[in-house]
Amino acid sequence: MSDTSLLNDLVDALKCLPGVGSRTAQRMAFNLLEHNRDAGLKLADAMQQAINKIGHCSRCRTLTEHETCRICASQSRNLEVLCVVENPSDVLAIEQSTAYKGYYFVLMGKLSPLDGIGPEDLGLDKLEERLTEGEVQELILATNPTVEGEVTAHYISEIAEKHQVKTTRIAHGVPVGGELDYVDSSTLSHAFDGRRDY
Amino acid sequence: MSDTSLLNDLVDALKCLPGVGSRTAQRMAFNLLEHNRDAGLKLADAMQQAINKIGHCSRCRTLTEHETCRICASQSRNLEVLCVVENPSDVLAIEQSTAYKGYYFVLMGKLSPLDGIGPEDLGLDKLEERLTEGEVQELILATNPTVEGEVTAHYISEIAEKHQVKTTRIAHGVPVGGELDYVDSSTLSHAFDGRRDY
Repeated sequence: MSDTSLLNDLVDALKCLPGVGSRTAQRMAFNLLEHNRDAGLKLADAMQQAINKIGHCSRCRTLTEHETCRICASQSRNLEVLCVVENPSDVLAIEQSTAYKGYYFVLMGKLSPLDGIGPEDLGLDKLEERLTEGEVQELILATNPTVEGEVTAHYISEIAEKHQVKTTRIAHGVPVGGELDYVDSSTLSHAFDGRRDY
Repeated sequence: MSDTSLLNDLVDALKCLPGVGSRTAQRMAFNLLEHNRDAGLKLADAMQQAINKIGHCSRCRTLTEHETCRICASQSRNLEVLCVVENPSDVLAIEQSTAYKGYYFVLMGKLSPLDGIGPEDLGLDKLEERLTEGEVQELILATNPTVEGEVTAHYISEIAEKHQVKTTRIAHGVPVGGELDYVDSSTLSHAFDGRRDY
């Protein structure tokens, strides 16, 4: 592609980023080398720092550079509710809505036998431990409404049942601000199934 | 945004990449930390290597990790033509078309008084030196057909005139495979101005 193999290496390496193909990687590499060398060195350093130092929260499994994350370390949240989500980004989204004040448990994935992801990969033993502590009264299942997400939610609900902990599932339906005719039929049928008294 | 400041640092740093905003940067950071740590470390290393070791060709100014780039170092090209382009990516594009067998001169930018980019920033002294060597018979101006690109081409043509070197401008017109009604009017007027006997 070019005469510099270091440039080729950089272009190849950039393709590990999600949504970045050959053309975008090439554009990024040229941009870094022509106009953004200082920022590029900072980025490389931030990447190394983050990858080497960020691990998982010992309590909820989310990404953190500390032993426990900020939320698990907080004393001011509701101990009685625990919300199960698939990814750290789900925690961010829920926190931004400020609708929830309990703690989280982050699966870091979902059950997916085809990809070889079983209960042990999702830390469900740790979740079960948490339920045996006896403080959690309600387990809110907030996995994604995909096939794998639903299966995961169902599997976890059975664990909770074993420990006599009530489980709830977040509501799925028409998004606020959405228009009915733009909503897919699966969401609409969820919206009808989940209708409430008015 | 999250409890890990290293994660925030990474998200901020990723925004230096072209076309990457907050949401994309966040998605990239989570993807690296959750699934791609090895590739991320490789990317950081490739970035440092490239930024620290890739400089400019002493002859044509393009990006290279050597003293002169592969093309300038080649003995088998046509010494009599020199093609002036704005960026290293333009060289790649022209090389891929295999339409040109001469040497290049890479401006690494274009005249842009508003951004404070003058002739000295484009290495035009080096280009002039090259013309005084006496080997170049034709200078092909392949800067982009933008206002700044045209101004740059015009400025360089005056330098070439001083040294009695013939200058040509690459043709602008309807792209091959393009349809007339999708081509903008400025391109169409170029296509009419540049019409040739059939």
